[in-house]
Formats: sequence, structure tokens, C-alpha cells
Amino acid sequence: MASQEVKLIGFWVSPFVHRVEWALKLKGVEYEYIEDDIYNKSPLLLELNPVHKKVPVMVHGGKVIVESFVILEYIEETWKEGPLLPQDPYERAMARFWAKFAEEELLENAGIALCSHGSQKEKAVKSTIDALEKIEGELKGKSFFGGEAIGYLDVALGWISYWLPVWDEMSSMQLLDPMKFPSITTWKNNFLENPVIKENLPPKEKMVVYFQKRSKELAPAMASRRHA
Amino acid sequence: MASQEVKLIGFWVSPFVHRVEWALKLKGVEYEYIEDDIYNKSPLLLELNPVHKKVPVMVHGGKVIVESFVILEYIEETWKEGPLLPQDPYERAMARFWAKFAEEELLENAGIALCSHGSQKEKAVKSTIDALEKIEGELKGKSFFGGEAIGYLDVALGWISYWLPVWDEMSSMQLLDPMKFPSITTWKNNFLENPVIKENLPPKEKMVVYFQKRSKELAPAMASRRHA
Repeated sequence: MASQEVKLIGFWVSPFVHRVEWALKLKGVEYEYIEDDIYNKSPLLLELNPVHKKVPVMVHGGKVIVESFVILEYIEETWKEGPLLPQDPYERAMARFWAKFAEEELLENAGIALCSHGSQKEKAVKSTIDALEKIEGELKGKSFFGGEAIGYLDVALGWISYWLPVWDEMSSMQLLDPMKFPSITTWKNNFLENPVIKENLPPKEKMVVYFQKRSKELAPAMASRRHA
Repeated sequence: MASQEVKLIGFWVSPFVHRVEWALKLKGVEYEYIEDDIYNKSPLLLELNPVHKKVPVMVHGGKVIVESFVILEYIEETWKEGPLLPQDPYERAMARFWAKFAEEELLENAGIALCSHGSQKEKAVKSTIDALEKIEGELKGKSFFGGEAIGYLDVALGWISYWLPVWDEMSSMQLLDPMKFPSITTWKNNFLENPVIKENLPPKEKMVVYFQKRSKELAPAMASRRHA
């Protein structure tokens, strides 16, 4: 039998990797972190995730799990203490619904807004703000999405608290306008005050340099998505 | 308290709706089916699913759940008898991984292949076949994805058994080539032989008419996705 040790292959600035790290740390699961390089992927990454060749990859007792939301469910089912998902099936469904919504409507459009120009950028900014409005409505002044403590949806949407403000700063957007989104702004502050989160964030200056480079690299691909 | 009755708002030819119906029927959950019209959406649909305005929508005791995979998890957690997901966390993770993979890589590309022409169609056909190859490898001669009985992944991927051959026939593609994909072909026959599945499929002739119309409607949008 393989040992039950946990390894996480990640990339320092990936929000997908961070959500897995936050979940492991919130649950107190020990793991070994292995940094990969998305510009020069390691043979280990290609071997462990041949389908998508992407981080995060979690290895637990020799078993390989990929895709951050799939990993979050696995973590929840394997280490049951300190559950991140609510217990009620309907509330669980809502958490999963909003996690998927934010991934498809918010993260996708915010990424396009960061890397594009002109009318494409305008359209993506509008879609991002529309998505934020729906999330603002869902939070409705709660401390966290699930109520009083950090849970699954906070972890899934955690990037909004830290990555989105960096992107706003970098590209003179104001997606996360505190006047427009008071509930998200309060949530963001609550989230970033949690010691586990606070101690597991990438350095901001390095992020700005990285995303400036990355957004230039991705711009041509964005421009070719005429009707994106 | 609202009653615990189950309602499902659907559209007769939607593979997303069918996977929910199959799951409910496999578990023996009674429900009322309400047909909607995606060309002329009902006020009920718009009220119940204001975010996406799409079927399927399930209502259980007054609670509204949308997104077919979210609904499948809800069904699994609410009616625990006859579980569709495996019990082992790793096997559950694999089922969720392949469900997501097939949705993003196979269904997406097969849809583009159906509605596009020229080099775009060629590219989508190739991507569809690449995805089918990975699924063929995952099945490896098993009767069903989970082993000997129909489970979550069979239900999630069930459209491959019936919708994909219709699309193949309609547009002279041969995506699901039995010589190339013997395991998927055997699985397809096993799946379609199950009484619950067999009795809950849309009529083929009506499907052909519908998808001929639909693929023409969607063709301009596809053509504008130059690098899709």
C-alpha cells in the first residue's frame, strides 16, 4: 500500500491551486507542496495530469485527483472534520451552483477584461459587473457565504478578494467597486482577515509583474475570439 | 411547510433534462414533468431560473435547484437509496472528473461539429474524437462506467448513446465509429437496454427534424467563433 501522504502540485499565483491549499489548511491536513512551472511543465505534471496538463494536481496515497472543484469535494469527503460544505442538501446545491456560476461568468469574464481591449474589454467588464451583482445579492450582508464561518463557497470564490483587486489596479478597471458592492467588500475583508487565508496569499508585487506579462501573452488569443 | 412534491421543468429533447429524469426514475422518485419551450420561455421558467433561464429546473418542496450536475448531486444526497455515485471518495472524484471532461471536451465539440462547416467542423470533429478516445480508455471493456450497474457517470454521459448517433446520422459524420470505439459501443448498447433509459428517450424522427432546424439557427454564431 502506498502511504497516505498528500502532495499538491501547484503554481504560486494560481487561484485554482490556492483554493485547494486553503481547504487543506482550514482542515489541518498536512501536505507537501511541489511548485511547477506552467511555462515549462515538469515531466511529473504531464505524467499525473495527462488529460489537462494543468495544476492543481493532488496526490493522496498514490491516487491522483485533478480539477480544483473535484479536489475540494474529495477533500470534504476524505477529511470529514471541519466540514466546508453545509450539511443540508439544498444549501450544498446552492454552494455548488454559485461556485460554478462564478467560475463561468465572473472568472472567465474578468480574465477576458484583463487581457483584451476596446469593445471586447467593455463587453467583458459589463459581464463581470453583471455577475458581481448577482453575487452581491447572494451575500446580502452575510459575513461569509455560508453564514458566520468560512466554507466551501468562500474558498471557491476566494480569488475575488485578492486577485480581482490586483487586476483592477493593474488595468485601471474598477470591477470591485466598494460603493456598488458593499456586501462583497465586507466579505472580502472578513475573508482576508482569516489567518489561514492571510498567510497563504501570493506576494502582490510579484503578482502584478506576472499578470502584466501574462495578459500581454494572452491578448492575441483574446483578440481572435471576436464574439467572446 | 411546502409539500415535498418534485417538479421538473424540461424540454423534450434536452440531454441535460434527460439525465435528471433518468436519475429520478432510477431512484424511483415520483415527479411531475412540466414541458417548457426554449423558443418561447414560460414566465415560470424565467421566475425559477432567473440567472440562466435554462432547463432543467427541479423544484422539491418549494426549493428550486438548477444546473443538471448540481441537481444530480442533490438527488443523490436527498434520496439515498440506490446510490448512483460510488461510495469511495476517489472513485467519486473520478466520476465527477469524467462527467466534467465529457461536458467540456466532448459535448461542446460535438455540438460545434454539428453546427459548423469547413475547417471549423474538421477541427471540432478531431477534438470530439480525441475526447472519445480518452473515454474509450476509461471504459476499458467495463459494462458501465462504475462497473456492473448504471451509475452517475453513465447518467451524465448517457447522451453519447443516443444523441451522438443521431448527430452522426444527420450530418454524415462518424464520430462514434464502432471499430474505433468498441468499449463505448458495448456500453451504449448496455445503457440503451436498461428499461428506465429505453422508456425515457425522445423520438428519433422528431429529434432529427429538431436538430436540423437548430443546427441551422446556431451556424452563424458558430461561424463567428473563428478560433473555437
